[in-house]
Amino acid sequence: MKRFGFLLAAGVALLALGQPAFAADANVFTPATLKASSDIQAKALAGSGAYGFVESLTVRVGPRLAGSPAAKLSHQWAEARFKELGLSNIKVEPFTVDGWERGIEHASILSPVAHHLHVTALGHSVTTPPDGITAPVVRFDTLEDLEAAPEGSLKGKIAFVDKKMNRLQDGGGYGEAVGVRGKGPEAAARKGAVGLLIRSIGTDSHRFPHTGITRYADGVTAIPAGALSNPDADQLNRVLALGQPVSVKMVLSSQAMGPLSDANVMAEIKGRELPDEIVVIGAHLDSWDLGTGALDDGAGVGIVLAAAKIIKSMPQAPRRTIRFVLFGAEEVGLVGAYAYAKQHAAELPKHQAGTEADFGAGPVITFNANFRPEAKPVAEAIGKALAPLGIVPGRGSSSGGPDIGPLAAQGVPTGGLGLDGTDYFDYHHTADDTLDKVDPKKLDQATAAFASFAWLAAEAPMALGPVPKKAE
Amino acid sequence: MKRFGFLLAAGVALLALGQPAFAADANVFTPATLKASSDIQAKALAGSGAYGFVESLTVRVGPRLAGSPAAKLSHQWAEARFKELGLSNIKVEPFTVDGWERGIEHASILSPVAHHLHVTALGHSVTTPPDGITAPVVRFDTLEDLEAAPEGSLKGKIAFVDKKMNRLQDGGGYGEAVGVRGKGPEAAARKGAVGLLIRSIGTDSHRFPHTGITRYADGVTAIPAGALSNPDADQLNRVLALGQPVSVKMVLSSQAMGPLSDANVMAEIKGRELPDEIVVIGAHLDSWDLGTGALDDGAGVGIVLAAAKIIKSMPQAPRRTIRFVLFGAEEVGLVGAYAYAKQHAAELPKHQAGTEADFGAGPVITFNANFRPEAKPVAEAIGKALAPLGIVPGRGSSSGGPDIGPLAAQGVPTGGLGLDGTDYFDYHHTADDTLDKVDPKKLDQATAAFASFAWLAAEAPMALGPVPKKAE
Repeated sequence: MKRFGFLLAAGVALLALGQPAFAADANVFTPATLKASSDIQAKALAGSGAYGFVESLTVRVGPRLAGSPAAKLSHQWAEARFKELGLSNIKVEPFTVDGWERGIEHASILSPVAHHLHVTALGHSVTTPPDGITAPVVRFDTLEDLEAAPEGSLKGKIAFVDKKMNRLQDGGGYGEAVGVRGKGPEAAARKGAVGLLIRSIGTDSHRFPHTGITRYADGVTAIPAGALSNPDADQLNRVLALGQPVSVKMVLSSQAMGPLSDANVMAEIKGRELPDEIVVIGAHLDSWDLGTGALDDGAGVGIVLAAAKIIKSMPQAPRRTIRFVLFGAEEVGLVGAYAYAKQHAAELPKHQAGTEADFGAGPVITFNANFRPEAKPVAEAIGKALAPLGIVPGRGSSSGGPDIGPLAAQGVPTGGLGLDGTDYFDYHHTADDTLDKVDPKKLDQATAAFASFAWLAAEAPMALGPVPKKAE
Repeated sequence: MKRFGFLLAAGVALLALGQPAFAADANVFTPATLKASSDIQAKALAGSGAYGFVESLTVRVGPRLAGSPAAKLSHQWAEARFKELGLSNIKVEPFTVDGWERGIEHASILSPVAHHLHVTALGHSVTTPPDGITAPVVRFDTLEDLEAAPEGSLKGKIAFVDKKMNRLQDGGGYGEAVGVRGKGPEAAARKGAVGLLIRSIGTDSHRFPHTGITRYADGVTAIPAGALSNPDADQLNRVLALGQPVSVKMVLSSQAMGPLSDANVMAEIKGRELPDEIVVIGAHLDSWDLGTGALDDGAGVGIVLAAAKIIKSMPQAPRRTIRFVLFGAEEVGLVGAYAYAKQHAAELPKHQAGTEADFGAGPVITFNANFRPEAKPVAEAIGKALAPLGIVPGRGSSSGGPDIGPLAAQGVPTGGLGLDGTDYFDYHHTADDTLDKVDPKKLDQATAAFASFAWLAAEAPMALGPVPKKAE
């Protein structure tokens, strides 16, 4: 039904303009819609204002760890921005998250030669005793090697997993390397280890350790876990290569804070024809505590707010509603995203598409989509409309971004605007994730891409879903 | 006399080879000497071993602050290396230095919005009280602006001097910017300030503050002084730009350690014809405490030791003695260099030339010399012999390097091998000065340059000095 309607609508538009009948995929959108998309891109490229939003967030709020007072401040900040932009249906939707606070962090090699090591606790790591843990170190190349260690072989030891992350434009090296961050503490504890150190999941060679969430398994002793910066992991390797037993002290005095209140903040531009159908464009408002979360995900927040500003400035509202969602508590396990999926479960069949900007400050270099097969021409037409920004087809099917995952799991179609991640993991989850790493021009290009995508998905002549529910 | 002898020697060599008599400056060195210089370069480029020395020093000793136990360990390390290389006249020459130790370092903006700031104490800064100093911040563009502030206008305030360093290949931006590090505490205290924060003297945009020695003036209150990383200085500016009073807390719990023992470590390859005449090739063994001193000046130590190894491997000893000097306590005011100049005062007229590698890990890109006018052809011939390494004439007259300064002040000629400093001040005096920043190939090229320079200066057919005593 919808497909038929779409072809008819496109045909009518074309006849009205006296144009020859091109293949459907070249004529999905009316010239007016494409002109509007092009205008949106031009406005963004001329100065989207996205950088200003990132600056405001990182200066007026700073780091905003899930559940923290700064996170609450970020909700107020976001609400105020949405109000300034004149958006409707502004909501702060609360949920509960397990709180955690970083304390003193210190590590050093005590023997055979003394070295200070730059370390940070993995997110939600349990604390060491106040005086820390001092123990011999046993090194493993990978998580798999740690898991293959004989039972009890790490009794009283600190396990060190030394897996190096590869630098790839699409960030694919992250998935290859990050497993040890989540599963390492359990694996090490199962072998008797009293602590875990991992090489940072990051591509830089600076003395910034990369934090990130870890997990503990029920019934297995929870041991403290930290990440060493890449140069410090290198140095530990060199000291191990001296061939003598290596003793390390680690002090990570973190603290679990119990259940705390957090929230998603959202707002809308109401659709002119199909106000109940919703395109979600999102980013996450929370950040880790070490940097100011400029790239992760201040940049995404800037893109979403600037996209809202530009779309709001258009002479006509989009056909469907565009919902701007700033998720909370992404870093600690997509807690805000799951809360959104739950709180909006009844609406999910009406979600036309979802996308998130959560991979740095641009530019967008690829586009792919996970739409129903009948909507392939829409994906192709959107791709064509994005091409002037230098965007090429991406590989595979789109995930839409981490916070879109719980929606995709319920069959919501996704658009994937692939940001250039070549340098992203140089800064990701470190103290060095600060505003100076954001290039306003690249951010404008990314805003152009996200805003025009949202516009076109909202204008589409057919529903883009449902799609098969995605495994999470 | 010497000049006449030189022309004669060159003429004899040419006649012996049946070559036409070229202008003197093309025939300063015999073909055999030039062949040896070329062989030295080839050996270095094929793998000088310099990187291995830097690795050994930074792994087996690590940071080695003047007067510290690690500095003593570095003396033993250097002595052992010289012995392994089979050098003669190995000496550890002690002197006294004022000791200092870094303690807890923390700074934060308390209001109007809370931000953690990455700070480090300037070297020899006095300590804050244990609870730190909390005070309003007053910002200045430059040291000159601070010095021009009205008397008493900073009473109870923290002065913040925000001078940005320029990135230049020859490191020239350092001299323009570094004044505030030495003179800032005095200038701020004279206006009544209770503390000083400066923007780091560095060209990076990472959250590593750059330390470095500061000074206090007699009769002026000594106030604690620290450097903010560049991104933190940026952030402080942004918070100041909000237009409200900005309150900062700084805790720098450093400690003066009184007079401590330190040393220069030296060794020689004795000259075959003029053993009492000495070419000094130096580097400094001490480092700041934050990084492992790989670039500053582990790289120089590696160059000197690898040069010694290669020259020692030559079939014939050099005409004059080459002395390899690893200075102590450079970072805290050239203390080792002054001690050397004093302890070797009687020998200084016999110093044929001095040069130091103290500007990172290469490559060498320029050469200039400060020889007596009659030795200009020697400088030109050395320049020609260095040209195959991609080295071009440098501007102005050579300083020879910081530790050579006290020798130059006594009329010792200097050779200046200008290292590429484009990135040097990204790492200088930070925790990020670690081995991963050293490129073995570039270090080999630098070793080729320093070793062949030392060889040719030692082979020269005339004395290169004396030169007018240089102002320090």
